[in-house]
Amino acid sequence: MSGRLYALGTGPGASDLITVRAARLLGQLDVLFAPAGRKGGDSLALSIVREYLGAHTEIRCCHFPMSADSAEKQQAWDTVCAQITEQVQAGKQVGFITLGDAMLFSTWVFLLARLGNPPWLEIVPGVTSFAAIAARSAMPLCMEQQSMAVVACTAGDEAIVRALRDNECVVLMKVYGRFAAIKARLRELGLLEHALMMSEATLPGEQCWRDLASLADDTPLAYFSTIVVNKSWSAAQ
Amino acid sequence: MSGRLYALGTGPGASDLITVRAARLLGQLDVLFAPAGRKGGDSLALSIVREYLGAHTEIRCCHFPMSADSAEKQQAWDTVCAQITEQVQAGKQVGFITLGDAMLFSTWVFLLARLGNPPWLEIVPGVTSFAAIAARSAMPLCMEQQSMAVVACTAGDEAIVRALRDNECVVLMKVYGRFAAIKARLRELGLLEHALMMSEATLPGEQCWRDLASLADDTPLAYFSTIVVNKSWSAAQ
Repeated sequence: MSGRLYALGTGPGASDLITVRAARLLGQLDVLFAPAGRKGGDSLALSIVREYLGAHTEIRCCHFPMSADSAEKQQAWDTVCAQITEQVQAGKQVGFITLGDAMLFSTWVFLLARLGNPPWLEIVPGVTSFAAIAARSAMPLCMEQQSMAVVACTAGDEAIVRALRDNECVVLMKVYGRFAAIKARLRELGLLEHALMMSEATLPGEQCWRDLASLADDTPLAYFSTIVVNKSWSAAQ
Repeated sequence: MSGRLYALGTGPGASDLITVRAARLLGQLDVLFAPAGRKGGDSLALSIVREYLGAHTEIRCCHFPMSADSAEKQQAWDTVCAQITEQVQAGKQVGFITLGDAMLFSTWVFLLARLGNPPWLEIVPGVTSFAAIAARSAMPLCMEQQSMAVVACTAGDEAIVRALRDNECVVLMKVYGRFAAIKARLRELGLLEHALMMSEATLPGEQCWRDLASLADDTPLAYFSTIVVNKSWSAAQ
């Protein structure tokens, strides 16, 4: 059996929101690389997949520093890239997990940029956090001629206002630490009643706020908090 | 056992890209409502889920007219909504399938708008077509401070140009019949080398074009053809 690398999107949080394909592949892995270090997000990815792993699968947690020192980060990725390539060349079935979808706001892409697209690589897509939020809240994303923008709240004020102005549906990721500013923008644009916020969608700690106008600016938020805006839908239920 | 309705995203096409949760729920259904009529897309949804259905599951294909006669369409949705509600009230486990994710460019939302968000409804998210295209082509979507827009090519020229100008990553859905016009816009904006097109991602007929500049304007395309643009990535591999 020749070596393979599977980059696996784990889905948003609940273990059974992973794909059937990813679940099956996890059971065949010799080695699983699991990123660690980002405020609980990565250990979450490992907890999602644990029940699908084979008894013999070796788990290697790899740490990627959040430091601003770019050289240190580059080196951490280079090291993991070399380790993975070595395992594949030794004929191993290797996995790398990533929360949500593998190709959207995913650290996996730092590895992909180093690996290129070798024939021994398979990327398995996953359910995104915003699809899970839409499902759990019963607030749809966009339809027919509408458009959707997905923006990180770290993108800056101008990009956020533009996205809110130009699209029927907007997903604002990484609200953590920026709720007051985003709320002010939503109010100015008359969008508060079309916006809801969800934390830890599909996990036991899931919370949904449908009345952002009444929510205190300093409400403590979980790290995985996202706002979804749909101009043709009311957030109240 | 009290009646339940499950709105199930089937994922992009390959049967094993459905979620573990949706696969399990499909095996417990008394009745499955499967929309039919949109150029092969809906029979595709049914073909994806067939292997997971229980032996006793009754399949009801429901036809939604594409006619411009809005009253006729409204009535078709009202009728299916009434049928589903009746089945749930009779204590049945009822499913409604939708290609890709349940809440993004999905006809299911016409039913949701009629049903509201009753306690007997569960929506199960699915992998979107663009996540599948990114995975299959190894071209990522957006990262970190970048933004992504998802636009239907039916949205009109202005919306498409704005999306291409303002976002690092753009997904252009429903290219069918509009390739020449989109290609001209991509050329004007200097984006042709950052764009790839995929048809029928994850299905046996999957095709990927990485050199859109050389692709004839009148190339015959499958109905499910999508262009993905990533300004920080090259489409060539």
